[in-house]
Amino acid sequence: METTVRTVGGIPELSEGDDLTAYLPDDADLVAVASTAVSKVEGRVRSLDSFEPSNRAQELAAKVDGDPRFVQAVLNESEELLIEEPFLLAVTRSGHVAPNAGIDRSNVEGDDAVLLLPRSPSESAARLAEAVDTPVIVTDTCGRPFRRGQTGVALGWSGMDAIRDWRGEEGLHGHELEATEEAVVDEIAAYANLHMGEGGGGTPAVGFYGVEPLVRHAEDDVLHRPKEDDIVRAALRGFR
Amino acid sequence: METTVRTVGGIPELSEGDDLTAYLPDDADLVAVASTAVSKVEGRVRSLDSFEPSNRAQELAAKVDGDPRFVQAVLNESEELLIEEPFLLAVTRSGHVAPNAGIDRSNVEGDDAVLLLPRSPSESAARLAEAVDTPVIVTDTCGRPFRRGQTGVALGWSGMDAIRDWRGEEGLHGHELEATEEAVVDEIAAYANLHMGEGGGGTPAVGFYGVEPLVRHAEDDVLHRPKEDDIVRAALRGFR
Repeated sequence: METTVRTVGGIPELSEGDDLTAYLPDDADLVAVASTAVSKVEGRVRSLDSFEPSNRAQELAAKVDGDPRFVQAVLNESEELLIEEPFLLAVTRSGHVAPNAGIDRSNVEGDDAVLLLPRSPSESAARLAEAVDTPVIVTDTCGRPFRRGQTGVALGWSGMDAIRDWRGEEGLHGHELEATEEAVVDEIAAYANLHMGEGGGGTPAVGFYGVEPLVRHAEDDVLHRPKEDDIVRAALRGFR
Repeated sequence: METTVRTVGGIPELSEGDDLTAYLPDDADLVAVASTAVSKVEGRVRSLDSFEPSNRAQELAAKVDGDPRFVQAVLNESEELLIEEPFLLAVTRSGHVAPNAGIDRSNVEGDDAVLLLPRSPSESAARLAEAVDTPVIVTDTCGRPFRRGQTGVALGWSGMDAIRDWRGEEGLHGHELEATEEAVVDEIAAYANLHMGEGGGGTPAVGFYGVEPLVRHAEDDVLHRPKEDDIVRAALRGFR
């Protein structure tokens, strides 16, 4: 089988209310869009001055040697902090685990501005997917434990399932497969991210062609680990 | 820009000593090969009976409700265990962090046989890369904290750098980029894994075309986090 991946050219710097869908390809089997672009059209740029630091934000800011207003922004976007020192590892309200709740300072205009993640990334993906009539993945760039560097991950998705379930299928010699759930959306988001690049030379959208047979249906479609199954998360909580 | 990814057909079930390189494409910019295939040609199949469980293996086997011989195999392949219960999360001798040290029971013949990871995955990749004169990534399928499902990751690589370093480059508005290190090998391994599939219908090799501009040189090329930088790893150690 063969798939092709193509960056989408000609997308200008985006602002609140811009029609991002006008730039997305209508002939792809799947479109990946960077969350920064989605956040911008959804008006998720904030001035740091709009955050009034609470006592807790000031305490945490001292621990991480950060700006209390930025820490307040992280707290506003978070359901829980898994790590409070030496950096803030947050669980966002949509379930994504990311340093600083995924809030970005490098891709937005003004020294005092931050870019929040889309409020509900899968709803954002659904709006885009409906407009272009194609599955859409909204991607983020994120670090991970144990391994150096960031990779693209799926923040939201629509028109496809996050997980491909291999349960019940057999290995080469008739043994039941051990790796039963494949995070298809993350594997696609990772490769999309490689094409998007970073910074001024980057492009926030990538079209995938020929991937339809790779995207199948699974029963239980949640990408974030249930709390009770996440041993590492439990350990971090115990440690804190 | 555009890249194309093609599965390699016609690779038979492999055994120790087989010439895997004979099946790899010679026209690709990069070839990804599943570690299971590499392990098989390198003779990394073991009978469980060849492992004599130590007292420690027997203790751990009771904790994880597993076969003491299998646990001994995990211990032999591991430098350290980060989690001992309810499953074994190991750091392998090559630095990879994986449940059960990546030892596989589903893709090998015989109820009593296990497949160890390649002893030195980057040396394996180097041998393959030299033979086909193309960068090679040896991939594994692996779970991760916080997110459900497995994805492909790079176990070893040769002829390219693991990390693309964006430090010093600027964002759209002149701010220094926050995500400075991109784990390019993992992003490629993830998408390769999607094409390989699992089990009897899978193929262990994938050719990448047009990726050359995406693979650049970085200074410091290690994929596993330095111990002292890995907050999650430190927390797990403190917890245990």
